[in-house]
Amino acid sequence: MDRRSFLRTSALGGGAAAAASLAAPAIAQGARTLTMVATWPRGLAGVWDSVERFSNTVSELTDGQLTIDAKAAGELVGALEVFDAVTSGQADLYHGCEYYFIGQHPALAYFTTVPFGMTTPELMTWYYGQDGMALHHELGEIFGLRGFLAGNTGAQGGGWFRNPVTSAADFQGLKFRMPGLGGEVMAKLGASVQVLPGGEIYQALSTGALDATEWIGPWSDEKLGLQEIAKNYYPAGFHEPGAALVVNANLEVFNSLSASHQKAIEIAAAETHQHNYGLFLANNGPALERLVQSGVQIQEFSDDIWDAFGSASQEVLGQYAGDPIYDKIYKSAMDSMRSSAQWLEVSDNRYSTQRNRVLAAL
Amino acid sequence: MDRRSFLRTSALGGGAAAAASLAAPAIAQGARTLTMVATWPRGLAGVWDSVERFSNTVSELTDGQLTIDAKAAGELVGALEVFDAVTSGQADLYHGCEYYFIGQHPALAYFTTVPFGMTTPELMTWYYGQDGMALHHELGEIFGLRGFLAGNTGAQGGGWFRNPVTSAADFQGLKFRMPGLGGEVMAKLGASVQVLPGGEIYQALSTGALDATEWIGPWSDEKLGLQEIAKNYYPAGFHEPGAALVVNANLEVFNSLSASHQKAIEIAAAETHQHNYGLFLANNGPALERLVQSGVQIQEFSDDIWDAFGSASQEVLGQYAGDPIYDKIYKSAMDSMRSSAQWLEVSDNRYSTQRNRVLAAL
Repeated sequence: MDRRSFLRTSALGGGAAAAASLAAPAIAQGARTLTMVATWPRGLAGVWDSVERFSNTVSELTDGQLTIDAKAAGELVGALEVFDAVTSGQADLYHGCEYYFIGQHPALAYFTTVPFGMTTPELMTWYYGQDGMALHHELGEIFGLRGFLAGNTGAQGGGWFRNPVTSAADFQGLKFRMPGLGGEVMAKLGASVQVLPGGEIYQALSTGALDATEWIGPWSDEKLGLQEIAKNYYPAGFHEPGAALVVNANLEVFNSLSASHQKAIEIAAAETHQHNYGLFLANNGPALERLVQSGVQIQEFSDDIWDAFGSASQEVLGQYAGDPIYDKIYKSAMDSMRSSAQWLEVSDNRYSTQRNRVLAAL
Repeated sequence: MDRRSFLRTSALGGGAAAAASLAAPAIAQGARTLTMVATWPRGLAGVWDSVERFSNTVSELTDGQLTIDAKAAGELVGALEVFDAVTSGQADLYHGCEYYFIGQHPALAYFTTVPFGMTTPELMTWYYGQDGMALHHELGEIFGLRGFLAGNTGAQGGGWFRNPVTSAADFQGLKFRMPGLGGEVMAKLGASVQVLPGGEIYQALSTGALDATEWIGPWSDEKLGLQEIAKNYYPAGFHEPGAALVVNANLEVFNSLSASHQKAIEIAAAETHQHNYGLFLANNGPALERLVQSGVQIQEFSDDIWDAFGSASQEVLGQYAGDPIYDKIYKSAMDSMRSSAQWLEVSDNRYSTQRNRVLAAL
């Protein structure tokens, strides 16, 4: 019996008594299984790894007393139905990206990534070292959710272009695949924005239905074969500078767990966030090398294009202003980012640039 | 009775029987306390935070069944005696930096930071996404240790100079406080290298016994008051580009724990690593702003100086070559770093530079 039919049965007759008699053996054994619905197909490299790592870690930390039954997209509900499934109690948790649900609340985007927003180290600073996590919880409570970041792709690539772009004017009429807020920014630059799932990108690019596309990063893009068609790759993009994945629990379910099981979810999610970031970077470096060896040209957007990305991104982020919690999250995130960025620019970034220059010459 | 006198007692008479009768109540309660000795004074900002976070998380994850009794430097053993204390079984774990113990094995440095080595995101990649952690364990087994990274200061600053330096020749005879491998690099540049504890730096700088010093980063340096004396701050340094803290357990003690308690140590350490990195960055940004407002000049080493740092760093790291596990760790770390660096330079770093430029102009 799946959970949905269990819920229906309970509601129809003698629900409380039936639930109590069903619950008793679980308490006697001390074990509990939570159903987690994911926005990902089973096995999708990188993101499904984080589903498995989180689930396994929770089980191992609790000595098998709390286990996660992870369902891929379509196995219990569709990818974009996970938010409703968890807020309604049909499932206990979801694993996905908060920005899929900006229709529910635009501020959710800040807990994945926003155009011209934070890099992953900056997000770690805001989320773990400042008030990012507390704001995530404050926002989640509106929907009866308790969320924790639980994966990170790092910076996503700027995209694959059949022909190089040299100025902002080149985006006029460009058929570019980019979903979400990044797509809204592209539309402001005059692009003909397309939203296609990953499985349809290769063909659209090869037939000319697309002039350009972004996907994730070298590791994931190489698997789609985009380098076979579009030879111009722009590694630095404006639209998803450090995209976090998330685990979000139904708040009533979360509150029904023991303190140590709640902590297991919180800490397993955070550990998965860091581990998954390392996994993406570990695979992006070698993939980029292979792409270059296969003849891909590494390109860089001009200052003029970056200026246009920046202005349009500020417009897109500003259009949601006026909602109190959106404004609070926006201000907190942007203040944190500007402050972190000042230090990182003169320390890490300056160091990396010099080290890379010197080591290449040695 | 402290653990040391307990061990003496056990060894002197009827040890096994005494241990069994003492252990019985602990097993009945199901609880166990491990003694952790730290290289830090109690309360030292940032690093002691990571001691507390790790300890609290282990306790919370295990519902109080495994607790950590954290001793600051000098409370049970001296700061630099923690390695011997844990390998000998006098204490169960230490919290510190692996590079304090390069006298035991030079490859330990790679699990803190080395000159011209990895930034923190690069370290996360190698340690969590590739074979860094496995190599840490392989090295630890030689000493009967099982270690996990458990904190990170991010990039440490290049230092405070009474007078600006403009070329590598300016380091000749410069009285510079820098311990460890970084100090060895400085010596190759002709500096008069001084090793002073944090509490003595301010006075040495103010009397002219030092011309320059490094410490940690803006947050920590500001607390020492270095900005009151030396007005030239070089945020980007070569010597500690992403310094990790560590928890290292006596391997026999670790192996005696249940699988879920072992996992609690591993995951709590990893979560602390990320959280602590966020904490340092969260404090470095605002501290840098305050330092600039107080009149500190932000300086940058010239290419000529970076070239000299690079060559000398390679010499210092190369002088340990020939030991099989050193060579294995060195090669693994450097291969990983070069691969990560290629992607990060053209993605994150390029993005950050453009974003910061555009946002400053908007």
